[in-house]
Amino acid sequence: MQKPAVVLLSGGLDSATTAAIGRSMGFRLYALSVDYGQRHRFELAAAARVAKALGVARHLVLHTDLAQLGGSALTTDLAVPKDRPMQAGGTHGMAAGIPVTYVPARNTVLLALALAYAETVAAADIFVGVNAVDYSGYPDCRPEFIRAFAQLANLATKAGVEGTHRYAIHTPLIGLSKAEIIRRGAQLGVDFGLTHSCYDPADDGVACGRCDACRLRRQGFAEAGRVDPIPYV
Amino acid sequence: MQKPAVVLLSGGLDSATTAAIGRSMGFRLYALSVDYGQRHRFELAAAARVAKALGVARHLVLHTDLAQLGGSALTTDLAVPKDRPMQAGGTHGMAAGIPVTYVPARNTVLLALALAYAETVAAADIFVGVNAVDYSGYPDCRPEFIRAFAQLANLATKAGVEGTHRYAIHTPLIGLSKAEIIRRGAQLGVDFGLTHSCYDPADDGVACGRCDACRLRRQGFAEAGRVDPIPYV
Repeated sequence: MQKPAVVLLSGGLDSATTAAIGRSMGFRLYALSVDYGQRHRFELAAAARVAKALGVARHLVLHTDLAQLGGSALTTDLAVPKDRPMQAGGTHGMAAGIPVTYVPARNTVLLALALAYAETVAAADIFVGVNAVDYSGYPDCRPEFIRAFAQLANLATKAGVEGTHRYAIHTPLIGLSKAEIIRRGAQLGVDFGLTHSCYDPADDGVACGRCDACRLRRQGFAEAGRVDPIPYV
Repeated sequence: MQKPAVVLLSGGLDSATTAAIGRSMGFRLYALSVDYGQRHRFELAAAARVAKALGVARHLVLHTDLAQLGGSALTTDLAVPKDRPMQAGGTHGMAAGIPVTYVPARNTVLLALALAYAETVAAADIFVGVNAVDYSGYPDCRPEFIRAFAQLANLATKAGVEGTHRYAIHTPLIGLSKAEIIRRGAQLGVDFGLTHSCYDPADDGVACGRCDACRLRRQGFAEAGRVDPIPYV
């Protein structure tokens, strides 16, 4: 019997690669996508395609209306920034500052829901595709945040209290560049044509090519020397 | 200008008293109730009544379907235990073990949503009515869990990273008995007739009187020497 693991699946290439890594480690995957009112909801359709291609045991979509809170360009009609400069000097990621696409406490909410799911399927392992290299500067993608969450998980839960198991939060991408993630995903057979990254797609779901997510993705494929199979506006 | 604070408001007497304490400390209250598919949904109506009576700045009800996860008598058709013994020897709370009314990772999810709300209203203070004395034995009501969440909050958020403020998780009831909570609430003018505690009410919302929540409540009123204004089946 394979050990169960919960994986947060957004439909982007990072989470698809993370799920493929979890599968390659021998876990039976319970995928969780969260419909939080994001305007790039095409990613939920992408998550379903990726979950199917990976042969997960179950794909759960939970609705949590963070859009009611406001405060982010991803959940309101604030403009999504386009053509932001990358960091200078050969480093990765976007230029300084936390952008308006930051969704308040998003990863805390997503991991809390993943923990609830993990408890109900008796999984001690949670996979999340956060990345602290080619990222947009969100606070809740950093290793110290992940460590604090693992500590919380063991205090928050029945298993943590009864000592049956300790939770591990796996972040296999946290130290990789986007190009390295793409190479790793390709090795594991991830079909990037199924994934969706854009924060601000056209009405038919086609990626804008200019938001942070598109720019990081395109630069990643270029650096990896591979062709991005999805179309852009 | 009063400082803003988020308060988790379930509609029970603990959260009503917690909110009244927050108000008495001079905070402008942003109340948050979560519709997580609980079967005792009468508490959401109670939360609205309490919010109105307290004059909160805003009462937000967020839908998060934890019932889809299963795993708890509060969100599925598992039977809610009745007439469970209290702890022996003059100590408070229910007898040993985490009961089936435990909702997986519930307080982690609730606090994560409260943190998201706090970020959007620029509140550094979050009030939650957890109690580690007269409680049902849930792991996520303990002081060490609350401390771990505060630590997480400061790593998870824009404010925590940019150093504009540090989050405080206020748990004014954590060391009080139910009788002490009732006395404190009464001093602050809480109308307990507006509150709802039962895990398994009749179809018309009338409390069963026999689940853990009802038993703790009734014993609390008895010990406080006060009359519980709500009806029971």
